[in-house]
Amino acid sequence: MPFIPVQEHLPGITGLLEFRQDTARPIRDLTQFLLRGANTLSEADRELIATAVSGGNQCTFCTTAHAAAADKLLGENKTSKQVLKDLPGAPISPKLKTLISIALLARDSGKSVTPEAIEMAKNEGATDVEIHDTVLIAALFCLYNRYVDGLGTALPADSSYYDTLAERLVTNGYVRPPQGFVNTK
Amino acid sequence: MPFIPVQEHLPGITGLLEFRQDTARPIRDLTQFLLRGANTLSEADRELIATAVSGGNQCTFCTTAHAAAADKLLGENKTSKQVLKDLPGAPISPKLKTLISIALLARDSGKSVTPEAIEMAKNEGATDVEIHDTVLIAALFCLYNRYVDGLGTALPADSSYYDTLAERLVTNGYVRPPQGFVNTK
Repeated sequence: MPFIPVQEHLPGITGLLEFRQDTARPIRDLTQFLLRGANTLSEADRELIATAVSGGNQCTFCTTAHAAAADKLLGENKTSKQVLKDLPGAPISPKLKTLISIALLARDSGKSVTPEAIEMAKNEGATDVEIHDTVLIAALFCLYNRYVDGLGTALPADSSYYDTLAERLVTNGYVRPPQGFVNTK
Repeated sequence: MPFIPVQEHLPGITGLLEFRQDTARPIRDLTQFLLRGANTLSEADRELIATAVSGGNQCTFCTTAHAAAADKLLGENKTSKQVLKDLPGAPISPKLKTLISIALLARDSGKSVTPEAIEMAKNEGATDVEIHDTVLIAALFCLYNRYVDGLGTALPADSSYYDTLAERLVTNGYVRPPQGFVNTK
């Protein structure tokens, strides 16, 4: 049971964003810009970074939701699974592998990111903005994962919820939906 | 040396916020609302939560900056030191101790926050919104600490910088200063 009274039909982050809409607004804005804004990293690339970090933090809601969004963007569900299980073997570009490696180091601690990890990404062609955005996406999902699990939020009753949520994240992004929640009907 | 080209005279977070102003805007808005908005927790209480989390993450820039802000708000520099060194012995209310304990658990992982820790805070009179804001402040500083250290930002050359920064954080809050940085002259 959640530690604070969020609406029962709103699992994971969705209930928290409705509980306190004043804090939700800038959180949504930051996520929309980082994950959906114009960027040399594709939306799928950025969802895979979010998925890998959430997986590292063992946040079931966020990992499942962002893997589902990545799957929808990619049109298949093998890549996200592979990124979570075996990053070196995942069917993604060498550059994205180095960026996800940086994200996983930042997930552990900012201090864990080494000049060598940055150098590897630069050698694969990563730009300064891509490195910046990767670290900030990792940091943002460290925020989300702690927010979602630190307030004891519930998982959806039915796992088909994630597919509906992913559909919205791909179609509408991270802006607040009209009713403030995903209609699962 | 920072991993990306931030302006040399802007240490810690300040260079990052100028490097990418599109992401800086919602980060500033969220921080301003959480740390300076109307709240039953005092500004000093919230700065102490930020200090404790940053201390736990060993982020020197953030720990020093927010301890300096708390000191300025409290008019003394013993409490922040004590919160960092010996929380049970710190001269703060029992309620704030339970909230900072929750923040330190969330710092470790969202999954580390226990129903018992929440119960203790509620028994000391903490409201749902106070518990929500405590977890979100902890999560936000887990973002900041990773952002600042994960991009290898520099510390200020002169430690008097923190006093100037704290003065601005107390007087103007977290909005962008006119020149985008703390003028240390």
